[in-house]
Amino acid sequence: MSVNLKNNEAGVFAVGGLNEIGKNMYGVQFQDEIIILDSGVMFPEDDLLGIDYVIPDYQYILQNRHKVKALIISHGHEDHIGGIPFLLQQINVPIYAGKLASALIRNKLHERGLLRDANITEIDENTVIRFRKTSVSFYRTTHSIPEAYGVVVKTPPGNIVFTGDYKFDFTPVGEPADLHRMARIGEEGVLALLSDSTNSEIPTFTKSEQIVGQSIKNIIQRVSGRVIFATFASNVSRLQQVIQTAKETGRKVAVFGRSMESAIKTGRELGYIQDENNDVIIDNRDINNHPAEQMIILCTGSQGEPMAALSRIAAGSHRQIHLQPEDTVIFSSSPIPGNTISVNRVINQLSEAGANVIHGKFNNIHTSGHGGQQEQLLMLRLMKPKYFIPVHGEYRMLSIHAGLAQRTGIAKENCYVMENGQMLALTADSARLAGRFPANDVYVDGSGIGDIGSIVLRDRKSLSEDGLVIVTATIDYQNKQLVSGPDIMSRGFIYMRESGDLIHDLQNNLRSIINRGLNENGNNVTERMIRDLIFEQIHPLIYEKTERSPMILPVLLDINKGVRKRTAKVEQED
Amino acid sequence: MSVNLKNNEAGVFAVGGLNEIGKNMYGVQFQDEIIILDSGVMFPEDDLLGIDYVIPDYQYILQNRHKVKALIISHGHEDHIGGIPFLLQQINVPIYAGKLASALIRNKLHERGLLRDANITEIDENTVIRFRKTSVSFYRTTHSIPEAYGVVVKTPPGNIVFTGDYKFDFTPVGEPADLHRMARIGEEGVLALLSDSTNSEIPTFTKSEQIVGQSIKNIIQRVSGRVIFATFASNVSRLQQVIQTAKETGRKVAVFGRSMESAIKTGRELGYIQDENNDVIIDNRDINNHPAEQMIILCTGSQGEPMAALSRIAAGSHRQIHLQPEDTVIFSSSPIPGNTISVNRVINQLSEAGANVIHGKFNNIHTSGHGGQQEQLLMLRLMKPKYFIPVHGEYRMLSIHAGLAQRTGIAKENCYVMENGQMLALTADSARLAGRFPANDVYVDGSGIGDIGSIVLRDRKSLSEDGLVIVTATIDYQNKQLVSGPDIMSRGFIYMRESGDLIHDLQNNLRSIINRGLNENGNNVTERMIRDLIFEQIHPLIYEKTERSPMILPVLLDINKGVRKRTAKVEQED
Repeated sequence: MSVNLKNNEAGVFAVGGLNEIGKNMYGVQFQDEIIILDSGVMFPEDDLLGIDYVIPDYQYILQNRHKVKALIISHGHEDHIGGIPFLLQQINVPIYAGKLASALIRNKLHERGLLRDANITEIDENTVIRFRKTSVSFYRTTHSIPEAYGVVVKTPPGNIVFTGDYKFDFTPVGEPADLHRMARIGEEGVLALLSDSTNSEIPTFTKSEQIVGQSIKNIIQRVSGRVIFATFASNVSRLQQVIQTAKETGRKVAVFGRSMESAIKTGRELGYIQDENNDVIIDNRDINNHPAEQMIILCTGSQGEPMAALSRIAAGSHRQIHLQPEDTVIFSSSPIPGNTISVNRVINQLSEAGANVIHGKFNNIHTSGHGGQQEQLLMLRLMKPKYFIPVHGEYRMLSIHAGLAQRTGIAKENCYVMENGQMLALTADSARLAGRFPANDVYVDGSGIGDIGSIVLRDRKSLSEDGLVIVTATIDYQNKQLVSGPDIMSRGFIYMRESGDLIHDLQNNLRSIINRGLNENGNNVTERMIRDLIFEQIHPLIYEKTERSPMILPVLLDINKGVRKRTAKVEQED
Repeated sequence: MSVNLKNNEAGVFAVGGLNEIGKNMYGVQFQDEIIILDSGVMFPEDDLLGIDYVIPDYQYILQNRHKVKALIISHGHEDHIGGIPFLLQQINVPIYAGKLASALIRNKLHERGLLRDANITEIDENTVIRFRKTSVSFYRTTHSIPEAYGVVVKTPPGNIVFTGDYKFDFTPVGEPADLHRMARIGEEGVLALLSDSTNSEIPTFTKSEQIVGQSIKNIIQRVSGRVIFATFASNVSRLQQVIQTAKETGRKVAVFGRSMESAIKTGRELGYIQDENNDVIIDNRDINNHPAEQMIILCTGSQGEPMAALSRIAAGSHRQIHLQPEDTVIFSSSPIPGNTISVNRVINQLSEAGANVIHGKFNNIHTSGHGGQQEQLLMLRLMKPKYFIPVHGEYRMLSIHAGLAQRTGIAKENCYVMENGQMLALTADSARLAGRFPANDVYVDGSGIGDIGSIVLRDRKSLSEDGLVIVTATIDYQNKQLVSGPDIMSRGFIYMRESGDLIHDLQNNLRSIINRGLNENGNNVTERMIRDLIFEQIHPLIYEKTERSPMILPVLLDINKGVRKRTAKVEQED
């Protein structure tokens, strides 16, 4: 695995973000200058048992650390900024980000004690960052968080545009996308476009945030009791729409959940959330000082996260908020694949407690932050790139997006559906794959980074399905006899108390296995031999009786080791 | 928990099926006659680690076994017939089912060696089963499997109607629902209606199976290469539509996957699948004797099940079918919540291998078997029940369905959103809750039924997240000394090889913990004490260093036990 970029070539690569949704981290390289675009985490799927985050392998970046000029952040979502603490532990690279993203990054670094050494520069759509050979500028786009930027990296062979995450919301909350700027960038000439593929399977145009705002207002107007409103804390525009609706309908808003409280605080500081007279958002200790029909509870938990405010409210375990039959709960979100079951569970609990629950796609209470096919086509038409690299998506999304590009007239051989770790080398009129670097997933579990791999995960999976059986015995290998045991312990396997016969059977079998092992192997019998015999023979026995395959762990003690030490000790004492 | 039904009351209850999708099992009781309606299984959600099936607790049925007259089956889906083998192991009840459901039940019982003693009677829409005090008749409905029946149980206080699973498909494949019969049942008078709530959150009318057939035909007509078609094996009408399309487009059909092969066989035997000239369905060993553009591969795996034919094709591990770039794969299905991620994984693999994949809601290639709100309202209008019991759904679905019933004029106090194990007692003009019986989930894992409970599951969960650490040591409690160890083994916790320092640290700490324990506890030191000390002190130590909480299992051997036995043995030999 190696990369060979020529001196006249600009390299484009992904450290993460291809063939997955998450851990976005792309890069542009020209000679001795590397510009990193975003540094995200991915949240693990269910089969990564116990893993907290997945981050990219930073090897290539670290090996080229002297070349890295900047980490450019397109917007403040976790899949674009969540990897920064892990990256900064290994390389201190200057960070450029919008003011909201900067605030979020600062919080994140502060929590991990990494803020002091970080070098963060705030940018906006007028910033140009110049390096010796390359430069970086920005354009305004629309997404489900304010200050989403597209990034233009100017290199000698040509301009490379990274869209970041975008939709074309012509009636957004906040500023619209800068279509004219995008048109000018396109006219100036785009050598390569890296464009967001998330919704490339969806033929329609993504709904505007304003339509969502209108639906939310319609619902809140017709509801008589308290409103409990759950959404993504990062969707600051949505939060502002809730505050605005509250103002218009004479309600107060109390905020619950750590990330929601922090989003409201940051949003207010930066002016994205407005409560001019300080009379809409109230202290959350004061919720009982206002009539229920004048309250909106704004909270986390729209994905059914078990520890979030809404889940605790639903389970009846929230310290302050107790469900009332007149409550209306609004899920202003759609469940991420993998969260559907947890979300449904929370909805059921809420309904059962008598609350009216509004969720799902029939109510116009949520919209995606990513454009569908029509918006992807609009971006392709505006940018008119020579080369196209679909990014931010699983394989099928990248592949459909490449097909769309071809429909706008980009030649098939100029569309590169790439993998993480592949280097695409571009000149003004050529492109070639120029090698690979390692870019596997790295698992973060607790404070350990990369100390979990497939064997540990395979063991966790096996343990999770059938549990384990521990066989203990003390053996006198010299005199070839079983001194004590075999005893059996189990965890996650079966109720031992109700399985007396099975245990008894197993013990009898183990006893004969061990005795046979000791007697049939001459004088060379070792612990290893006995262990192997137990593995081989007890596994089918357990399967036959239970149709389960627990992990089997023999713990065999050699009496002579103990006795020898003991004798030595006793002699000393004498 | 007890039930008290009076002699003039008809009881209506669910053993399973309320507050869940799955393990449907309802019942009607009058005096000493109990009619059971369906006997399904539920497939476990992800948090039931390692569990194969969930079945209801049959306690109430078993305690009243002398009263049970019949098990009536509405249709042949797993959530309505899958529990039969487990039930028949405990009570031999006569089964009444349509001919397709009967065939499926026979297969199921045959596989488990239970067929010989089973008593299965085939019914159709004209069958009336008379018992001394109650009788059972049927009406034809439409669903995603042929021969779906609604059931009318006539009892002295009035008729109780169980809809089974239904939609109103006015242009079905096969026979339409018998609207006139339903109208007559309604006119005759329905005391209570138990109606399918699955799609009560969906405001629309469910698409007809014919529309799906048309879309499938349109797609297959415009595709030039081979078609790989995945759907639910039980959807025999869908299978027939594929065969029909093959005939019309000049293609052959080869069938892969055990359940699909068996469904095609049964469907042909019963006349639901027609290949009159025996020239469409070919032996699956002959797929290479036909040009790719004339082939349809009909297979299992539409839910991303890892061992199914399609998943193996996608992974490149299918013995016979190797993907070709001209292949088109059609998912004629929608992912069940919880399966989305596996389905996406298979779609990505297929796309990556170059196949064209058609899936999702934008293509009209799948429709639900359950009616939406409009159909539920039509059923309520036709049946005009006095009492309404929404069944077959999670709480929020039942609750919305009850709301719909009220919109058709049924009094709120006549709508009963019940729980499994609750008994509703009805006379011609009254209803009351008449107690409860135990109706918890019973877990089936391998051959064990009910031997897994919350402790075993909690252990599996803990093991799956952080693995385990086993501490072994041999201790001489008499002389208060550590004879050998402590040694540390782990599984699913961390790569031991790369964690030498951590292990060394832990060993040192354990050594002091054990020595302190032995010396500070006078002469009464027990194994228990040392175990407790290890638990208490090693756990925070591991957490501090790794932020993980593995399960800790101390295995402590008492050297004296071994030595004592050994001495005894030696003396005997002398």
